[in-house]
Amino acid sequence: MDKSISENGETVADGSIRGYDSLHQLLSANLKPELYQEVSRLLLGSNCGRSLEQIVLPDSAKALSSKHDFDLQAVRFSADEEQMRKPRVVRVGLIQNSIALPTTAPFSDQKTGIFEKLKPMIDAAGVAGVNILCLQEAWTMPFAFCTREKKWCEFAEPIDGESAKFLQELAKKYNMVIVSPILERDMDHGEVLWNTAVIIGNNGNIIGKHRSQYMLRKTPSSKLVSFWSKRCEIVFNPSATVGELSEPMWPIEARNAAIANSYFVGSINRVGTEVFPNAFTSGDGKPQHNDFGHFYGSSYFSAPDASCTPSLSRYRDGLMISDMDLNLCRQYKDKWGFRMTARYEVYADLLDKYIKPDFKPQVVSDPMLHKSSS
Amino acid sequence: MDKSISENGETVADGSIRGYDSLHQLLSANLKPELYQEVSRLLLGSNCGRSLEQIVLPDSAKALSSKHDFDLQAVRFSADEEQMRKPRVVRVGLIQNSIALPTTAPFSDQKTGIFEKLKPMIDAAGVAGVNILCLQEAWTMPFAFCTREKKWCEFAEPIDGESAKFLQELAKKYNMVIVSPILERDMDHGEVLWNTAVIIGNNGNIIGKHRSQYMLRKTPSSKLVSFWSKRCEIVFNPSATVGELSEPMWPIEARNAAIANSYFVGSINRVGTEVFPNAFTSGDGKPQHNDFGHFYGSSYFSAPDASCTPSLSRYRDGLMISDMDLNLCRQYKDKWGFRMTARYEVYADLLDKYIKPDFKPQVVSDPMLHKSSS
Repeated sequence: MDKSISENGETVADGSIRGYDSLHQLLSANLKPELYQEVSRLLLGSNCGRSLEQIVLPDSAKALSSKHDFDLQAVRFSADEEQMRKPRVVRVGLIQNSIALPTTAPFSDQKTGIFEKLKPMIDAAGVAGVNILCLQEAWTMPFAFCTREKKWCEFAEPIDGESAKFLQELAKKYNMVIVSPILERDMDHGEVLWNTAVIIGNNGNIIGKHRSQYMLRKTPSSKLVSFWSKRCEIVFNPSATVGELSEPMWPIEARNAAIANSYFVGSINRVGTEVFPNAFTSGDGKPQHNDFGHFYGSSYFSAPDASCTPSLSRYRDGLMISDMDLNLCRQYKDKWGFRMTARYEVYADLLDKYIKPDFKPQVVSDPMLHKSSS
Repeated sequence: MDKSISENGETVADGSIRGYDSLHQLLSANLKPELYQEVSRLLLGSNCGRSLEQIVLPDSAKALSSKHDFDLQAVRFSADEEQMRKPRVVRVGLIQNSIALPTTAPFSDQKTGIFEKLKPMIDAAGVAGVNILCLQEAWTMPFAFCTREKKWCEFAEPIDGESAKFLQELAKKYNMVIVSPILERDMDHGEVLWNTAVIIGNNGNIIGKHRSQYMLRKTPSSKLVSFWSKRCEIVFNPSATVGELSEPMWPIEARNAAIANSYFVGSINRVGTEVFPNAFTSGDGKPQHNDFGHFYGSSYFSAPDASCTPSLSRYRDGLMISDMDLNLCRQYKDKWGFRMTARYEVYADLLDKYIKPDFKPQVVSDPMLHKSSS
């Protein structure tokens, strides 16, 4: 992080604002407290009618954050009390980070460097009692797909590869499920590459994997929506995206998925600007460049009641911890009532028609309709 | 509108902020210009890399806004130039309004009162050259569904009823399509009630109707999503919703629909607090009350590139006008590339399985998976 950057948003030579840590920090530093509270109500929502509470973390977690200079935030989502179920509170964590070494370093050093960098952050999650931790997309490597160079595929691993071994020990040590999104090479199917989240159970076993429908770039929010049919109560969206491409969408898509599907969403974006040795173009008519842009971090959680946590830093590595009472999911399904009235068979029928090659959308226009209705 | 309300957000007795016109107005009045510009980039997005431009409206439109005291805003969405298509710019309008008379007035007076109140606003849209205008949900009546009293069904009309006749003349006069969301009574099918948008063509003919899948309360964003399969380039979401229920969702759901489906969305919410003669409860354990809450207006447009207009007032009637180059829709479909790679057949297959009574979601757990993979 550039140390000259002001916490309150500093005006730089071209008149633009740089270097603020997050939108919420920018607003809280520049608005009167009562104004900030109202702006927060509109931007962050309120959780069961209350502001989100801070979680008190053990000193050992805070010490790791100070020593290794990463952002550490911890916030609690509550739910209403129920008569027939007890609260089901899970402590969940997200990690965002920059790469450890320049992209010109030997690949194995780059990977080991990231392992070493992540270790104290995962330790902090562990000592803070996190039950489920998710890392960022393709966390073992720079996000080199923008270069279109194939050599970066060397970072791919089978799901039980080096990164899994590194995490399995920590998962077991801290009794913590770890979701590990990597570039996967499927050795059993002709070395096919996948964008895969490996799920390491709290006993250190690999208990599952999820392969994205979309290969690294171009990950749509529909990816999230398709989880509504499962029994999901938390969906993680590990991603890698830069300011110009998506920053205004960042507070929108995940929150919408949480609201529309009545589940929690964890959104993770990596941090920093990754500079590559060979220049490349991005298909947008702009001159060639050696970096894809600034990965703006800003990882956060969203809840079914439209509330969300503030975001982690736009510049620093970070660990976001959140307690979630999963009972909130069903409470919001019942509150909105769509599960009483939803007509999934209508959507199924529509989609079946839509995928037929001879599908024609209904288009009405004045002369046609006027004739047929007269 | 309470005239004592300050434009900059006034602190009232309980320490909360009331009476600001919109989130954006609140922020622009309280942040330094260069900070507001950056906050705007994150909250409103940017349109093809630029800020949205104001549209200069004819004096006759502005005069109507001053004389009849309604908010009038006009903003342009641009698109990139193409080689194979000319720009396809459409001028689109949204109207939000409070009711005209107390809910205790004779029903026919209440309805006529709204007609009279809307006339100068529709005239303003007409003289401003609006091509397509959309009114708010159930615009001919108070939003009485919260009372659960059946007498308000008297406001229902067939699609060629009184309100259609009122609008048909104006549509013809101004060569303007008008979308008219009413409580419909289907005389040909046993007087069934529908939540219907009647489409009045620019020649004054009724050219179509759309009946909501959901009956007035409980209108989900999935309503919007289901339009992706049609050839839509603009989707209107006329709604009626109050602060406590949904205000933090208001800037989220419609913008997500615009981004995910690459179309423009017009979001309309009525304005004001409607007090009913008989007290009612809302199923939330709170004491009975005579109003449902404050309808917070805030109507606005969203675009496929994640940009959006500022919102109309939270308190006043308003007309929002926007020029949209519809070419932006396909430009964003192509930019994100999902139409190159989308696998709708996977979704169709999933949904077909999901609606079967014996559908079981996939749930993995450590012991099971460990056993089967060893």
